[in-house]
Amino acid sequence: MDVPVPDAAILSRKPAIVARLRAVLPRDAVIDDPAETRAYECDALSAYRMQPLAVVLPRTTAEVAAALRVCWEEGVPVVPRGAGTSLAGGSMPTADAVVLGIARMNGVLETDYDNRFIRVQAGRTNLSVTGAVEAEGFFYAPDPSSQLACAIGGNIAMNSGGAHCLKYGVTTNNLLGVTLVKMDGTVVEIGGPWMDAPGLDLLGVVCGSEGQLGVVTEATLRILPKPEGARPVLMGFSSNEVAGACVADIIKAGLLPVAIEFMDRPCIRACEAFAKAGYPDCEALLIVEVEGSPAEIDEQLAAITAIARRHDPVALEQATDEAHAKRIWLGRKSAFGAMGQINDYMCLDGTIPVSTLPQVLRRIGELAADFGLEVANVFHAGDGNMHPLILYNANKPGDQERCEALGAEILKLCVEVGGCLTGEHGVGIEKRDLMGVQYRPADLEAQMRVKDVFDPKWLLNPAKVFPLAVSAGRRAG
Amino acid sequence: MDVPVPDAAILSRKPAIVARLRAVLPRDAVIDDPAETRAYECDALSAYRMQPLAVVLPRTTAEVAAALRVCWEEGVPVVPRGAGTSLAGGSMPTADAVVLGIARMNGVLETDYDNRFIRVQAGRTNLSVTGAVEAEGFFYAPDPSSQLACAIGGNIAMNSGGAHCLKYGVTTNNLLGVTLVKMDGTVVEIGGPWMDAPGLDLLGVVCGSEGQLGVVTEATLRILPKPEGARPVLMGFSSNEVAGACVADIIKAGLLPVAIEFMDRPCIRACEAFAKAGYPDCEALLIVEVEGSPAEIDEQLAAITAIARRHDPVALEQATDEAHAKRIWLGRKSAFGAMGQINDYMCLDGTIPVSTLPQVLRRIGELAADFGLEVANVFHAGDGNMHPLILYNANKPGDQERCEALGAEILKLCVEVGGCLTGEHGVGIEKRDLMGVQYRPADLEAQMRVKDVFDPKWLLNPAKVFPLAVSAGRRAG
Repeated sequence: MDVPVPDAAILSRKPAIVARLRAVLPRDAVIDDPAETRAYECDALSAYRMQPLAVVLPRTTAEVAAALRVCWEEGVPVVPRGAGTSLAGGSMPTADAVVLGIARMNGVLETDYDNRFIRVQAGRTNLSVTGAVEAEGFFYAPDPSSQLACAIGGNIAMNSGGAHCLKYGVTTNNLLGVTLVKMDGTVVEIGGPWMDAPGLDLLGVVCGSEGQLGVVTEATLRILPKPEGARPVLMGFSSNEVAGACVADIIKAGLLPVAIEFMDRPCIRACEAFAKAGYPDCEALLIVEVEGSPAEIDEQLAAITAIARRHDPVALEQATDEAHAKRIWLGRKSAFGAMGQINDYMCLDGTIPVSTLPQVLRRIGELAADFGLEVANVFHAGDGNMHPLILYNANKPGDQERCEALGAEILKLCVEVGGCLTGEHGVGIEKRDLMGVQYRPADLEAQMRVKDVFDPKWLLNPAKVFPLAVSAGRRAG
Repeated sequence: MDVPVPDAAILSRKPAIVARLRAVLPRDAVIDDPAETRAYECDALSAYRMQPLAVVLPRTTAEVAAALRVCWEEGVPVVPRGAGTSLAGGSMPTADAVVLGIARMNGVLETDYDNRFIRVQAGRTNLSVTGAVEAEGFFYAPDPSSQLACAIGGNIAMNSGGAHCLKYGVTTNNLLGVTLVKMDGTVVEIGGPWMDAPGLDLLGVVCGSEGQLGVVTEATLRILPKPEGARPVLMGFSSNEVAGACVADIIKAGLLPVAIEFMDRPCIRACEAFAKAGYPDCEALLIVEVEGSPAEIDEQLAAITAIARRHDPVALEQATDEAHAKRIWLGRKSAFGAMGQINDYMCLDGTIPVSTLPQVLRRIGELAADFGLEVANVFHAGDGNMHPLILYNANKPGDQERCEALGAEILKLCVEVGGCLTGEHGVGIEKRDLMGVQYRPADLEAQMRVKDVFDPKWLLNPAKVFPLAVSAGRRAG
């Protein structure tokens, strides 16, 4: 992957820039010793690393605004960072950038159970949002796999989803408002805690904009009452096509499970070897989970298993108690760990129309064979968000390059059938060079004009989302 | 209300402008005879009228683009119009504008039941979208009261809701993509039929933008499988406060009825006199409707009536059959007609946090007494979208002015408690002078900069949304 050329003038002015940051921030909020900034040299796309110019760790919106104002005046790029769990390199530093980490901003500002919202600082971790309200019987719905670590600010930047988002929607569907600091340090409020926030709906543009438009410092989130219970059913099928057809029929019937997770044979085998969850030996597995009262659960699962039976399942197993439910989820939840133990892998994140699932899975198999690599599929099937895992050997020369080439082909396939390069991981640095597959130059130009309005100097989260050649030209003005 | 001053230069060039429109559109698609354009002089805010310069009635996106390009080149304002049912004057003409009516664009372009969407031309009426898919067991959820007449394009412009939107969301939650023609005639696609449409989420900005950014000519809408059944329950309470507290408790408990409708005593009396639905004589009525299978309905209504009983209802009546259900809805559905028979009225459309309902209803009563007018309240209580009806006598000098002054006070109250000037009717011409109550000048400036990007000459839907003095300055450049 190309490395952006740092601005030598910024590098040479480092002491002055750091001094200005120190003048407006508390003593412990500015780090410039390379031994300490090393922790920020990459995120979860750890194949790529770069030491930043400096790191700031503010505690309040006012401190974020002060830091951004200095960088704005000095013309220094800023990389906003939540918890650094991006799989797409969404918070990857450049050498001439200041990383703005919001992990210290983890407070709860307000909870309102009557109106069902919570307001938090954006560095708060996803799971601890639920932690703050669960004693009252509420929860925050979006549940990315990294929810123990990832920050709400990062969730907003990437419009994160999760296994249970089929029913409850992804981040954008559970986000009510944000406090956004623009690159020049001005603070704006967008949306708000009630229905029908006034004015143009700019919240949608901010959510999923990957830190290109501003830094979200506070967020108002919808909270939901916890369901009475939940129960998964495990289904095995004789082929990916049949499992895909079963998913399409469940969706078409208007049933709304909280999750429909799909695993193909390579994934089942790896998980079974690792977690020993007792999965049946078959070509494709679905885990379908429903929530509600016992009567609602019974009724929904009756309808879902009736549909499954029409597709001749080789296994059909409803959880009988809590321990059984945990076992059914165990394999799926350890899928990425299991894969990591036996292989290096690259996790893709394309979306496709649900109805094209069988066709896309078949074509991925053919592509994998062409490249001489294996692909394991594990994904949120209900909403068409795929996570093909390409298995490779990082120590074998040329394998990573072949892996990246196959990944690009699979993502092109997603776009070809009417889908999208990314569902929930974002474009980051990982997919910036593929943007031309999805967009004509005029489309990219339109998106960049939106960034022009929010960040006219193109200082925010550099070298992400847009192809390097294009964004470098923009920054030069 | 102030009338915008027409551009005399445009009026004098009318023959040339009409000739250019005729050159690019079919013979029957351009109307300039004042006898024929009279039908377009107002929408449902019929107290205000103005004959437009001309009217164009295109049949395709290409014809819309051609008409807009002519107006762009000639510097002529354009008023997009769906079915003309706006209660806020959202498609009110100015004397120097061309009305662009999309009523002829009512075709179905594509239905896809596997992926649960329909693509229609934007002039199609709301109810006939459901009409196109109901044989297959599907429906389109948002249901504005005017759904028999109103167009999808207008629904998108105003982000329309309806009685059943508590569960299913309003237009923005059921809109997947649009074809938008910009004022200069360029055609852009925003969003698309699948989850996670690529790129910045500009769909939210377009939805609810009241024709200020472009003309939506085609829309991709989510369709849902029809529920097995539905059942309403009627509840009477001894005061607005108690009924309001009951609504708040239902919402807080996480129950999700499809509708919670609220009527206060003046409204109950008028409806009962008109429709004879057999409503109990009480201070406040709620109609709560749930959907699902018989078992789901029973379970939800059991939980809801248990909550209601804690608030000492003076009446609690669950529909026993279809006829009974119809009777329960009859009074509510005829509320506006009933009011219109005994009074002139002005229908407001503010939103408030659900938890402030009792306090806001009490304050509205006090304000009405101060102004010597009566206010009847009927509204979507579940999501805090109020429709206070101010009753007045149009033939009594000064009554309409007092009515408008009281309306302004009530909307200010909505903003004061944390709500919003408009829930689903839009700002239009009706509330443009109140925008300063909700926004500081800098906020309005930010919204206008978004319009600058889409419509730099400020030709689209003139004299709406922003205070006249502000928008006139913008158009002059």
